[in-house]
Order: sequence, then structure tokens, then C-alpha cells
Amino acid sequence: MKRLRYHRVRSTSPDYIACLNQQDWPKLEQFVHDEVSHNGERIGISGYRKMLEKDFHEIPDLHFNIRLLISDPPRIASRLQFDCTPKGKFLGLDVEGKRVSFAENVFYEFRSEKIWQVWSVVDKVAIEAQL
Amino acid sequence: MKRLRYHRVRSTSPDYIACLNQQDWPKLEQFVHDEVSHNGERIGISGYRKMLEKDFHEIPDLHFNIRLLISDPPRIASRLQFDCTPKGKFLGLDVEGKRVSFAENVFYEFRSEKIWQVWSVVDKVAIEAQL
Repeated sequence: MKRLRYHRVRSTSPDYIACLNQQDWPKLEQFVHDEVSHNGERIGISGYRKMLEKDFHEIPDLHFNIRLLISDPPRIASRLQFDCTPKGKFLGLDVEGKRVSFAENVFYEFRSEKIWQVWSVVDKVAIEAQL
Repeated sequence: MKRLRYHRVRSTSPDYIACLNQQDWPKLEQFVHDEVSHNGERIGISGYRKMLEKDFHEIPDLHFNIRLLISDPPRIASRLQFDCTPKGKFLGLDVEGKRVSFAENVFYEFRSEKIWQVWSVVDKVAIEAQL
């Protein structure tokens, strides 16, 4: 059972990341729980979608790359890598069209086979070092 | 075999964190590989120890709390929580004795049952929001 869940959770993650990269928002509900929380705040799937849409608006060439993926159901952790060009401010920094490279270390907890809790930290220090 | 490694890696982590909290530096070599890398830079165990000693110097009440621990040998991911009082600047911010609360999302990769690669991101954005 544990083994089955391991493979199911692990195989879901690349599909979820592909959904983000395709900005296929109607598909988001296949992966994300209605009552999803982000860093302890329950924002729901509509808030989650808005957050992602805002990210793609601010960073038109945003692309999620999975560097590390570790699975321990009902949780997953991933180190995501970004090489992108935020067009204005990003995390309060004047990036203004400069190409930057940074990571996000993120944990997902699943409930009913969907992402229910997200704890994310973006490496702002790495971005500052490139400006 | 996988199951055995899972339990070994998982049970090591609280002992490693206890070693940090006790600042028991001679014991560090039980947990950390001689050629450890931190965020892609090979700093070795002596550089790793110096980094930790600097952290405790800058934050005298530093204490590592494990919030999440997920195991997928040879890797582990942990969300660490800190409630502490950096005495001066911290991550370039003028914290200057203010109590702050923040997380670190960190991945460890083991080799020969010791920490060999560390990918860490500290939530600087959360600290800024408290200043």
C-alpha cells in the first residue's frame, strides 16, 4: 500500500509540473485540492491559480524544472530550478528584465491524491547575489 | 534493503539535529561527510563546521526544530523552523536583536551514511515581513 502510494504520488508530480508549464489552468483541479493551503494560509484552488497566474504575468518566460524529487507519502519534496527573466520587481527586488537563476525548495502534502498543503521557500538570497 | 535504509536515514536525522543544537562539533563527523557540499559548493566538513559556528555566533539562541521530515534514501528533506534573535545583521537584514520566526527548507543527500550534499533555502522573505 505504501509502495503503491509512493509510485502514485511520485508519478503525479511531473504531470502537475507539466500542467504549470503549459499554464493549463482548467487541469489544475486534477492535482490541487479545493482547500489547498500555501505556507500555512488556506487560499483554496482559486487563490492558488491566481498566485500562479500572477507569477506567469510577472515572469513571462517562467518554466518549472524539477531538480530533485523525493517522495514519502503523503508528502513530496522538490527542488525546483528556474532560469528566467522577471520583467519588473520580483520578491521586492528590481530585477527589471535581467535573467536570473534560482531555486525553490518546496514540500507538498497530499490528501485524497491532491496537493493539500504547500510549504515553499524561494532562494531570494541567490537572486540578490546576481543583481 | 530500501526499507532498512529508510529507517536508518530517518533515525539519523534527529541525532544530527540534536548534535547541532548542542553545538557538539567533535560529533559532527559522525553525521557529515568529509567532502560535504553546500548549495553546490564543496566546503568540506571544516567549512561546514565554520558555517554552523558562525550561525551560532550571530544567533546566540539559535535552535533547530524539525517541522517536517521526509525520507527517500539516499535523500532526506526537512522543513526546519527557527524562533530566534539574531544579534546584528542576518542575511543582510538589520535584525539587530529582534525576535524573528522563519523556516528553512533543506535537502540532504547521504553517501556512506553521511551527509554529502546539502541544498538549503532560508525564508528571507518571511523575516523581512517581520522587520
